[in-house]
Amino acid sequence: MITLTTDFGLRGPYVGEMKVAMLRINPNATIVDVTHGITRHSILEGSFVMEQVVKYSPKGTIHVGVIDPGVGTSRRAVIVRGEQWLVVPDNGLVTLPLKHIKPRKAWAIDIERLRRFTGWEVSSTFHGRDVFGPAGALIDKGVSPEEFAVEVPLESLIKLDVKPKKEGNEWLLKVIYVDDFGNVVLNLDDYKRPREVELPDFGMKIPYLDTYGLVKPGEFLALPGSHGYLEIAVNQGSAAEKLGLKVGDDVRVRLV
Amino acid sequence: MITLTTDFGLRGPYVGEMKVAMLRINPNATIVDVTHGITRHSILEGSFVMEQVVKYSPKGTIHVGVIDPGVGTSRRAVIVRGEQWLVVPDNGLVTLPLKHIKPRKAWAIDIERLRRFTGWEVSSTFHGRDVFGPAGALIDKGVSPEEFAVEVPLESLIKLDVKPKKEGNEWLLKVIYVDDFGNVVLNLDDYKRPREVELPDFGMKIPYLDTYGLVKPGEFLALPGSHGYLEIAVNQGSAAEKLGLKVGDDVRVRLV
Amino acid sequence: MITLTTDFGLRGPYVGEMKVAMLRINPNATIVDVTHGITRHSILEGSFVMEQVVKYSPKGTIHVGVIDPGVGTSRRAVIVRGEQWLVVPDNGLVTLPLKHIKPRKAWAIDIERLRRFTGWEVSSTFHGRDVFGPAGALIDKGVSPEEFAVEVPLESLIKLDVKPKKEGNEWLLKVIYVDDFGNVVLNLDDYKRPREVELPDFGMKIPYLDTYGLVKPGEFLALPGSHGYLEIAVNQGSAAEKLGLKVGDDVRVRLV
Repeated sequence: MITLTTDFGLRGPYVGEMKVAMLRINPNATIVDVTHGITRHSILEGSFVMEQVVKYSPKGTIHVGVIDPGVGTSRRAVIVRGEQWLVVPDNGLVTLPLKHIKPRKAWAIDIERLRRFTGWEVSSTFHGRDVFGPAGALIDKGVSPEEFAVEVPLESLIKLDVKPKKEGNEWLLKVIYVDDFGNVVLNLDDYKRPREVELPDFGMKIPYLDTYGLVKPGEFLALPGSHGYLEIAVNQGSAAEKLGLKVGDDVRVRLV
Repeated sequence: MITLTTDFGLRGPYVGEMKVAMLRINPNATIVDVTHGITRHSILEGSFVMEQVVKYSPKGTIHVGVIDPGVGTSRRAVIVRGEQWLVVPDNGLVTLPLKHIKPRKAWAIDIERLRRFTGWEVSSTFHGRDVFGPAGALIDKGVSPEEFAVEVPLESLIKLDVKPKKEGNEWLLKVIYVDDFGNVVLNLDDYKRPREVELPDFGMKIPYLDTYGLVKPGEFLALPGSHGYLEIAVNQGSAAEKLGLKVGDDVRVRLV
Repeated sequence: MITLTTDFGLRGPYVGEMKVAMLRINPNATIVDVTHGITRHSILEGSFVMEQVVKYSPKGTIHVGVIDPGVGTSRRAVIVRGEQWLVVPDNGLVTLPLKHIKPRKAWAIDIERLRRFTGWEVSSTFHGRDVFGPAGALIDKGVSPEEFAVEVPLESLIKLDVKPKKEGNEWLLKVIYVDDFGNVVLNLDDYKRPREVELPDFGMKIPYLDTYGLVKPGEFLALPGSHGYLEIAVNQGSAAEKLGLKVGDDVRVRLV
């Protein structure tokens, strides 16, 4: 099984081109579209989405992620092998999924050698179709990365800074995801269940509960969310809109 | 074959998580995305969309629908077996698809027993991934609902009130769907072909024809639609926008 | 493999109905969603998207395209056989994909004969589900078009006028696509690499480079794009928005 997570959008030929190119290389591939609606160039959002999917995927799944503002520059295209596979640009996208796959080896793709398998030119602007998709399709077919990539140290992979920071009794957190419903996900997944959550920047203290329906429509709550991270939400409303928060923003939080 | 109809949106990890979780349980499942763009929490819209897909699906198809504002509360998760299967929250979503599957039996899912099959925790907020998707994948794999659900009377299933009402020579109808083109679908599917349709609330009398192109661009018409329900449309325009109508709204109609 | 390119949108039942109808006829079909987000009724945009997918598809692939403003009128539903197959309304949609498939034969679908295979009524408004999808599924299953269609001359297929025109040292071009990022694609794919591109209508002269990242964020460039056509772009911005251009617009261009 190969999953696809990209910022290509859903209107154009890009998703289709990538999938037919993969099926041309490997007609038996099972391709699962995760989303092609990652906010353009948002590596952090893409990393969060890939992490969630990795957590529920069977061993051996190949996750191809293409959020790639550096396409056509010298950034590496990398493959990581653990209990599952990651095939992504080396720009930090691996950061969150890497936590769950017990990584053992990494490679940087050699485009010239990859082209011997695909048979078509590699464009400067669309490595989803020309590099990442084909690499994923080849691995799924059983071709070793050694055939078209060079081993690199796992430590050389670029990582995002998403460790939660503590200052006194206050967490300095970051918004790592805002879902379609406006729920705000923060980078804190290891904490003792609080009774309430204070957001000093907004002068708010809100209850920590298990699900949205436990407060009235329009009211705020904090909750564990379905992904394990601390989430700020409004029942039947958008917390992100009400607080003016987006992916990458900093938020101070006290658990009480 | 398993179809998916949800309001999860297309930007997040949710659709991907649900699909990989299903393929983890049943790697051979054929999953067909119907839509993940149902208006958030719109049970009526979801019910209409599921109905249309049921009408063209082969016998034995499993339809998983997740429009679930009551997730995490005590609402039941139900399975209905007829010529096709429905796996949905018990909130009225079954109403319209039920008309076409000759239902014979219904079950309420027992989450504790279901967990023995999935092996992971059931969150309070994401039963698409943790309950409905796995249940559909298990049924598709040949596991009997008796293994993880308790039979309940068919009559106990919650239904929406979508029967068209008549008052004198006037129908009191409800908008059950507005498509991407702005065509307005009303809950009347059993009527004699009229020559014209009057909309007294809007002071309009419009022709009843077979297809959009039979009036000039921008002009109104009524037509049978592709789903059999009475439809109000504007050729190359949006009837919903021009009339200010949305799903759930009441509309008075005279067929003349 | 069957690819689908439509303007049905992603919110409704239409895409689902079409896919289950196809799988009902041919349960083993591999269906690849290219996009259902073509701008409503934009035949030119649909033709461009189908062309890109055709270029990367394996031989024998069946491309079903439904951008069909004339549904229900007397426009023909056609099948083209070459190295790959096209199944589309006869409204110009074939124009760009046809360049890449070495067409050998064409047929017009006979709806009455097709219905003997599907078994359901053909609506006046939804030939994706009732005609084009089933025709694609039958071909994929190995049924000859002769069984449900009548041969027509290849020359009788309707074509769009998308030949680039030259006037002195100036190209009179047309916008054939604007992607989700706002990159503007023009109908010129056979030209000598220039150093700069002049857009006299906008009083602009911009560099011709290989990829977006070679200019500063917010700056214009021209480039070959991943599809081979001349593209006007803004690094990390929308050229279409800044220039006010959309599909079908004319643009004068000088290559210098």
